[in-house]
Amino acid sequence: MTSREAILLLERFRAGQVGRDDVLRAFQAAPTADLGFAKVDLQRALRKNFPEVIFGSGKTPAQVAAIAMRLAKAEKRLLVTRIGKEHAQMLRRKLRPIKYHELARCVTYEKARLQKRRGVIAIVAAGTSDLPVAEEAAVTADIMGNTIERIYDVGVAGLHRLLSRLDSIQKANVIVAVAGMEGALPSVIAGLVSKPVIAVPTSIGYGASFGGLAALLAMLNSCGSGLTVVNIDNGFGAGYAASQINALATGELE
Amino acid sequence: MTSREAILLLERFRAGQVGRDDVLRAFQAAPTADLGFAKVDLQRALRKNFPEVIFGSGKTPAQVAAIAMRLAKAEKRLLVTRIGKEHAQMLRRKLRPIKYHELARCVTYEKARLQKRRGVIAIVAAGTSDLPVAEEAAVTADIMGNTIERIYDVGVAGLHRLLSRLDSIQKANVIVAVAGMEGALPSVIAGLVSKPVIAVPTSIGYGASFGGLAALLAMLNSCGSGLTVVNIDNGFGAGYAASQINALATGELE
Amino acid sequence: MTSREAILLLERFRAGQVGRDDVLRAFQAAPTADLGFAKVDLQRALRKNFPEVIFGSGKTPAQVAAIAMRLAKAEKRLLVTRIGKEHAQMLRRKLRPIKYHELARCVTYEKARLQKRRGVIAIVAAGTSDLPVAEEAAVTADIMGNTIERIYDVGVAGLHRLLSRLDSIQKANVIVAVAGMEGALPSVIAGLVSKPVIAVPTSIGYGASFGGLAALLAMLNSCGSGLTVVNIDNGFGAGYAASQINALATGELE
Amino acid sequence: MTSREAILLLERFRAGQVGRDDVLRAFQAAPTADLGFAKVDLQRALRKNFPEVIFGSGKTPAQVAAIAMRLAKAEKRLLVTRIGKEHAQMLRRKLRPIKYHELARCVTYEKARLQKRRGVIAIVAAGTSDLPVAEEAAVTADIMGNTIERIYDVGVAGLHRLLSRLDSIQKANVIVAVAGMEGALPSVIAGLVSKPVIAVPTSIGYGASFGGLAALLAMLNSCGSGLTVVNIDNGFGAGYAASQINALATGELE
Amino acid sequence: MTSREAILLLERFRAGQVGRDDVLRAFQAAPTADLGFAKVDLQRALRKNFPEVIFGSGKTPAQVAAIAMRLAKAEKRLLVTRIGKEHAQMLRRKLRPIKYHELARCVTYEKARLQKRRGVIAIVAAGTSDLPVAEEAAVTADIMGNTIERIYDVGVAGLHRLLSRLDSIQKANVIVAVAGMEGALPSVIAGLVSKPVIAVPTSIGYGASFGGLAALLAMLNSCGSGLTVVNIDNGFGAGYAASQINALATGELE
Amino acid sequence: MTSREAILLLERFRAGQVGRDDVLRAFQAAPTADLGFAKVDLQRALRKNFPEVIFGSGKTPAQVAAIAMRLAKAEKRLLVTRIGKEHAQMLRRKLRPIKYHELARCVTYEKARLQKRRGVIAIVAAGTSDLPVAEEAAVTADIMGNTIERIYDVGVAGLHRLLSRLDSIQKANVIVAVAGMEGALPSVIAGLVSKPVIAVPTSIGYGASFGGLAALLAMLNSCGSGLTVVNIDNGFGAGYAASQINALATGELE
Amino acid sequence: MTSREAILLLERFRAGQVGRDDVLRAFQAAPTADLGFAKVDLQRALRKNFPEVIFGSGKTPAQVAAIAMRLAKAEKRLLVTRIGKEHAQMLRRKLRPIKYHELARCVTYEKARLQKRRGVIAIVAAGTSDLPVAEEAAVTADIMGNTIERIYDVGVAGLHRLLSRLDSIQKANVIVAVAGMEGALPSVIAGLVSKPVIAVPTSIGYGASFGGLAALLAMLNSCGSGLTVVNIDNGFGAGYAASQINALATGELE
Amino acid sequence: MTSREAILLLERFRAGQVGRDDVLRAFQAAPTADLGFAKVDLQRALRKNFPEVIFGSGKTPAQVAAIAMRLAKAEKRLLVTRIGKEHAQMLRRKLRPIKYHELARCVTYEKARLQKRRGVIAIVAAGTSDLPVAEEAAVTADIMGNTIERIYDVGVAGLHRLLSRLDSIQKANVIVAVAGMEGALPSVIAGLVSKPVIAVPTSIGYGASFGGLAALLAMLNSCGSGLTVVNIDNGFGAGYAASQINALATGELE
Repeated sequence: MTSREAILLLERFRAGQVGRDDVLRAFQAAPTADLGFAKVDLQRALRKNFPEVIFGSGKTPAQVAAIAMRLAKAEKRLLVTRIGKEHAQMLRRKLRPIKYHELARCVTYEKARLQKRRGVIAIVAAGTSDLPVAEEAAVTADIMGNTIERIYDVGVAGLHRLLSRLDSIQKANVIVAVAGMEGALPSVIAGLVSKPVIAVPTSIGYGASFGGLAALLAMLNSCGSGLTVVNIDNGFGAGYAASQINALATGELE
Repeated sequence: MTSREAILLLERFRAGQVGRDDVLRAFQAAPTADLGFAKVDLQRALRKNFPEVIFGSGKTPAQVAAIAMRLAKAEKRLLVTRIGKEHAQMLRRKLRPIKYHELARCVTYEKARLQKRRGVIAIVAAGTSDLPVAEEAAVTADIMGNTIERIYDVGVAGLHRLLSRLDSIQKANVIVAVAGMEGALPSVIAGLVSKPVIAVPTSIGYGASFGGLAALLAMLNSCGSGLTVVNIDNGFGAGYAASQINALATGELE
Repeated sequence: MTSREAILLLERFRAGQVGRDDVLRAFQAAPTADLGFAKVDLQRALRKNFPEVIFGSGKTPAQVAAIAMRLAKAEKRLLVTRIGKEHAQMLRRKLRPIKYHELARCVTYEKARLQKRRGVIAIVAAGTSDLPVAEEAAVTADIMGNTIERIYDVGVAGLHRLLSRLDSIQKANVIVAVAGMEGALPSVIAGLVSKPVIAVPTSIGYGASFGGLAALLAMLNSCGSGLTVVNIDNGFGAGYAASQINALATGELE
Repeated sequence: MTSREAILLLERFRAGQVGRDDVLRAFQAAPTADLGFAKVDLQRALRKNFPEVIFGSGKTPAQVAAIAMRLAKAEKRLLVTRIGKEHAQMLRRKLRPIKYHELARCVTYEKARLQKRRGVIAIVAAGTSDLPVAEEAAVTADIMGNTIERIYDVGVAGLHRLLSRLDSIQKANVIVAVAGMEGALPSVIAGLVSKPVIAVPTSIGYGASFGGLAALLAMLNSCGSGLTVVNIDNGFGAGYAASQINALATGELE
Repeated sequence: MTSREAILLLERFRAGQVGRDDVLRAFQAAPTADLGFAKVDLQRALRKNFPEVIFGSGKTPAQVAAIAMRLAKAEKRLLVTRIGKEHAQMLRRKLRPIKYHELARCVTYEKARLQKRRGVIAIVAAGTSDLPVAEEAAVTADIMGNTIERIYDVGVAGLHRLLSRLDSIQKANVIVAVAGMEGALPSVIAGLVSKPVIAVPTSIGYGASFGGLAALLAMLNSCGSGLTVVNIDNGFGAGYAASQINALATGELE
Repeated sequence: MTSREAILLLERFRAGQVGRDDVLRAFQAAPTADLGFAKVDLQRALRKNFPEVIFGSGKTPAQVAAIAMRLAKAEKRLLVTRIGKEHAQMLRRKLRPIKYHELARCVTYEKARLQKRRGVIAIVAAGTSDLPVAEEAAVTADIMGNTIERIYDVGVAGLHRLLSRLDSIQKANVIVAVAGMEGALPSVIAGLVSKPVIAVPTSIGYGASFGGLAALLAMLNSCGSGLTVVNIDNGFGAGYAASQINALATGELE
Repeated sequence: MTSREAILLLERFRAGQVGRDDVLRAFQAAPTADLGFAKVDLQRALRKNFPEVIFGSGKTPAQVAAIAMRLAKAEKRLLVTRIGKEHAQMLRRKLRPIKYHELARCVTYEKARLQKRRGVIAIVAAGTSDLPVAEEAAVTADIMGNTIERIYDVGVAGLHRLLSRLDSIQKANVIVAVAGMEGALPSVIAGLVSKPVIAVPTSIGYGASFGGLAALLAMLNSCGSGLTVVNIDNGFGAGYAASQINALATGELE
Repeated sequence: MTSREAILLLERFRAGQVGRDDVLRAFQAAPTADLGFAKVDLQRALRKNFPEVIFGSGKTPAQVAAIAMRLAKAEKRLLVTRIGKEHAQMLRRKLRPIKYHELARCVTYEKARLQKRRGVIAIVAAGTSDLPVAEEAAVTADIMGNTIERIYDVGVAGLHRLLSRLDSIQKANVIVAVAGMEGALPSVIAGLVSKPVIAVPTSIGYGASFGGLAALLAMLNSCGSGLTVVNIDNGFGAGYAASQINALATGELE
């Protein structure tokens, strides 16, 4: 309820058109649908410009499908993350048209093909093993209405591979830089561009990588200006933030 | 040297207007001024839309002043971070007009007052002790040409204080959220706005705060979408990234 | 043996009604039953107002059943935690009436339905994935004689969901607040109520969550007054402490 | 504003006794006084049954005094924690009657001597070095209206010292157990009493104590039921929670 | 080669009874048998008073058996640790008489029953889950010729259980104290006895136990004098050290 | 493209023998073959004197085989690390002659048997369990053209085993020292030789070994001069660096 | 009160020679002297064969002196650890004869020179910087009545220094091995002797030494049998445990 | 004593030219000079090709000077590390000619100017704050007889600075790469050269840098082949290892 709607409501109350209990309820309303095992947030799209994203990890295929179907009644686009093949098959039976992104472990649903924003989000990944995380970022930003450019396998151990793609990177409005192991890629990119760089550490590595901690610390300590960081393996979060920035950049909030 | 300049240079070489060595040198040029103890990056403004920022920590007042004076020859604005009173006094003797921001431990230099971008960056801080970090972010974003709104002392332990300022927060293009201790403020804000939120953990706290680690981990694990994080106490980095985003949002890159 | 009983014993010894060895033994008595693989504490209910709780993790179904049957001879209520379906089935064959709480991974045994204390314990959980831990707390507090109110899926990323249930939370005598990821929920609640809040971090999360460490640190560093914390995933401990407090609040120690 | 007051307000609005803007403002009111460098929470006592506590660490004596004087206009009791002699002297000049607790590094202010609750809070400390933290807990609980029993220097290395005071410990409504080094004291106490035990790890120790981490982990992993834990050296938090519990136990909320 | 033997060798060399190469070789001799995949140390019993112990973890049943058979040619007693049922069966086929200690995951071999030292080693364990580690210590100390007294399930949460066995503990020459979770047991014991206490942290616990780290740190920080610590779950190491001490105490080195 | 080739290219451009676009392209060339899922680095041998090594972990047998076949067109030797039996079988079907090193989990391919450098690399390992890592180092250094001497099972607990092989160790140009647990072996060796020692911590151990962290820290803190360290279990990295040093030592870079 | 004394007391009670209250008091007696700021344990010597040791850290010179004087009334020997020059001077004024051990930061008091046990404790230290910790161990063991042999500056980087003293080390009943940095010394010694080795990690080192953590972990993970470990820099604990073992070895408990 | 000398000694013994005791002593000789507070290793130069280096940290100026003077009797070159101005002044009074390297905190002593090896060691540093560590490496490698090329302030945030010096880096025999913060420099360099790269993390940084841990982990996890790592801030160790490698490369071991 916006401030404007609140004023209207109060006037209607004064005019005797709504009762006192309705006013109180409106000021305290819980805009959620209760499925028993979960409360579905039906006003998220109003607050955040995108419907509630379904985090599939730890939920059964049936639970994921139930939440998705409830949201699909109200929304034109959906995103389900961190799921496996079984979840995707269940969703396909219940909801059309969906797309299963196997590498990204995501399902997207788009009632009708939406137009994409013109500004580009570059998703840059250091190694082949980082692709699942990079793809989660790409799928997220794509379903949120952005044009994506994928620039993969350009880790700093072979600098020429990165430099040969520099032009594309510099043209993007925002760059998502994904790397495991020593996590140096975002630092190098941030030194070469003037746009926001969102760094995603991955859990790729072994030994003193400590499940991505080494890459995370490297990114947090980057000497490159304008770099911000998300959680280890959090491709979704990076894609989401990149979309918010690109929406600002293009002035196309929806 | 942009691609365009490179093409011109090659044509002039083919036309015999420049020598082979000049071409080679141009492709390998180091656009830096060497002060002996430091290499000053004179092309940073071209690459990053803002001159090299002087990180004062560990440098003597004389060193800071020398670098600042060298940069001031080429640039209209300067930012010096992590310095004390002594550095500020030395800078004031050497360079005018400068402004010393004591709480933020920064000095700024502006040859002529630049116009600010219309879009607003909100700097939100949880507690009084977080202000030095919040101010570093504010001063950074201000000197980079942004309009700042400060919203301080609104930690989650007194939620009404935060909610009473929600309107201002929601109007900003980008929010910098600064908090120590349990670091919950950015999570709560990210749930209430649709704009990018940059979280800055501070080293404020004691015991199991471990110098800001608790707040850092909380922010990295936030369930609020669109949240990105910078290093502990890195107000500068947050202000810099916020400025990059606001520049995109307003379309006023310089 | 209370001080009072000790005085009586000494007088009976002086009167020649008991022998010296009996006195010595009484002062050194080990009130335990030895099952070979475990010593069952038969005086726990006297000291702690609730019989020894059987921690099932690492014990075979047969061992759990043996301990439970031995305790059931002396006690009216039992609680078995951290067990699976197999343990529950074995217990059902040996002991009636029991109840298997699958989500909470607990079994309870109640010879006769006991009356509940009037004061309410609110169990508040941030996300769907936190429910097993929240339910362990709820089942524990319930079998110890308390009235429970469950308030689930009210994480801080959607603050309105929490605020819409605030009334129930404020009415409780004690609140158990369960959250993983950034663990901000207990801090927000502690700022809104004047009753003790027991925070339970869960191991829900990924990457820099480090198995619940991020949530644990956030809760320990909470700026909300009156917050105390238990171990990661320790729903039992929180339910137990909440019951002790509610017993004090209602004056109904048993 | 309670629900009751909200209903009254709406009725007065319908009756034309208050204007629409007043209603809107009331629903959005920020009950804080702004001192420039801090927002003073004037409704804390309503929400939490005790005025906002002034955390002195990182504040100048002048700032602490200003906040204290502003709060003293509205409140009958005040607590200032984590301060030094200089702060105490400044406070003494500005505000009477105050009491400086040197060991606890606290100042208390009591307009008139309030009656104490009858129920007892036992503050138990393992070693001499733990006393500053224990005293912070004791001073906090005392100013909040509780009767305190101090039981100091009873660490587990000399078990007879603890057992000789067991009677007092068992009579208390709630026990605050303070220990550094291996932090075993709360575990042992929790095994001997049926009341809530709040464990406070201290930073006392050296080497692999890691500033209190060893004691903190020990307390979180305690096998004693009913134990909850606060941050390292957080005597205030333990005293505050103990007071909340004792208030419930005695039914004397104020 | 002892100093005495070295003198003899040199004299025989001077006397021409042995060649120069033999002397050189003797001074550089590698007293090991090479099995290809392992070098078996045949002089360990001379240096350490007990033959090389076979650490089974990561070795195949066939490898363990080969090493055991080679050692059994030279030795009267053997100990194999960290093995499973499969290894035990293979050993039983190859070597008689052996004994498989299932709980301790060890096999022992004793050509003829050796006499035990009179002095007692007490193995004290806090909980049922700690028994595998306690038994590894017990089996180790037993095969090395010591009399063992097992005192199990006497954790500090039920102090009376420990105190009722205090007499036995105080009579031992050396105490091995095994505990997981908060690891308080060795501290309490060390305060009650005047003999060396060897503390063994176990990986029993969950959450902030971090695989035994909490117990390990507690034991290292114990305020009980005379306490020394071995690695997490290292029952073998504790039993070995206890045997060395008991051997000194009884003067029966073999 | 070397500097020399760049000069030639520029002259040919001036002479009209190549076009402007060719020059630009040459300066920006990406010397990689794109297989879709990976970019194969075809110039690695020029830059690093050895072709790109295929890190098999996380790649399917088919992917590994595709990359290997593409590289084999251009290279005379190949190394594939961190693979299992399945990968080896797939490679054997596609590429001849290859050799599968089961213990080292590597496959090597050598079109024709190359001559080995005369200087020796000593691979020294502390225990039987460290052999997979030691063998990865050995296989790596071998395929890169070095003569290897394996010195295994010489941990510091039996110092005579190490000292008996000291002569061989001292004769090597460079020593790779592999150890888990307390990781003391490289320190001891570095004190006895004047050649570079590369220390490889392994994840062998349990409890407070923390997956090799204990050995890693020990090696980094070694008081032995000339010691450098690689990541936990990184036999490949150690073998690679040792080969680089041996190549320098023998002057036989290829 | 021993069991024997308890029997006597009961008989005297039955005989009417002592009152009931005396019996109760005896069974509950707290054998401590209360100095206000500390409880002095007057029965420690009975339980532990050595009077309570005064840990000076964090105590004022006056407090240390007061405790020392109270203990000196009952005891023939005293040990004060972790003190500075100021404490030593204060003690010298109050108590004679004392000895200040500057390097060890200890003071000892011996009413009359006691005879030393014949068995030797070897204190072995790796480097010059480890001497304060080694000396704390030596002073502790000396005042407890043992003969000490100091073997210093024999770190593993120069193995010949250690081997040249091996004879002395092997003759000792128990060895205290002190080392910082990589902490390898105790492992090497444990491989060469058949007596108990107590390892003391020191905080000597820098960088990834993490204040002694590297050495601590190395010692806990030692592959040398019979090694036990104490806290970082805990020379006192090692000396105390060594004395307990030597007392057992020589059969001279006092 | 080399093997060769051992043979000679034995022959002289057989010939009656030396006594048996002399032979035994020679085989057990401790080639150290005992200064009371330190044992000076007089055979280090034989074993390691460079005299014992004096680590000044924690030693008094007088102690450092005494060790230096003792070594200077036998050696032509000396290196003292980790000292301040006071140590340098004391050394200057006692020993000539010495040179004090203030930034590197080292003193070197060279009886006569030695010839340098022709091969070059490149010391590359990321930022101005890393120079003390870089200089420690440079001074170490210089006094050991190497030609040094310093390439400073070439961090990855301004890649062009690094690339403009690439030629010099590629020509070196071995590269020491020094960096704090995110520690990415060595990874980038290792991808561009075919020579050994020794990475030195520095403690430069703040927040989640954790005293250099972030840089250390990044370097250990580098995807660049041929990279080895030394301890945080260990410029000496890197310079020493680089010298050993350069000595091998040039074949000029002395």
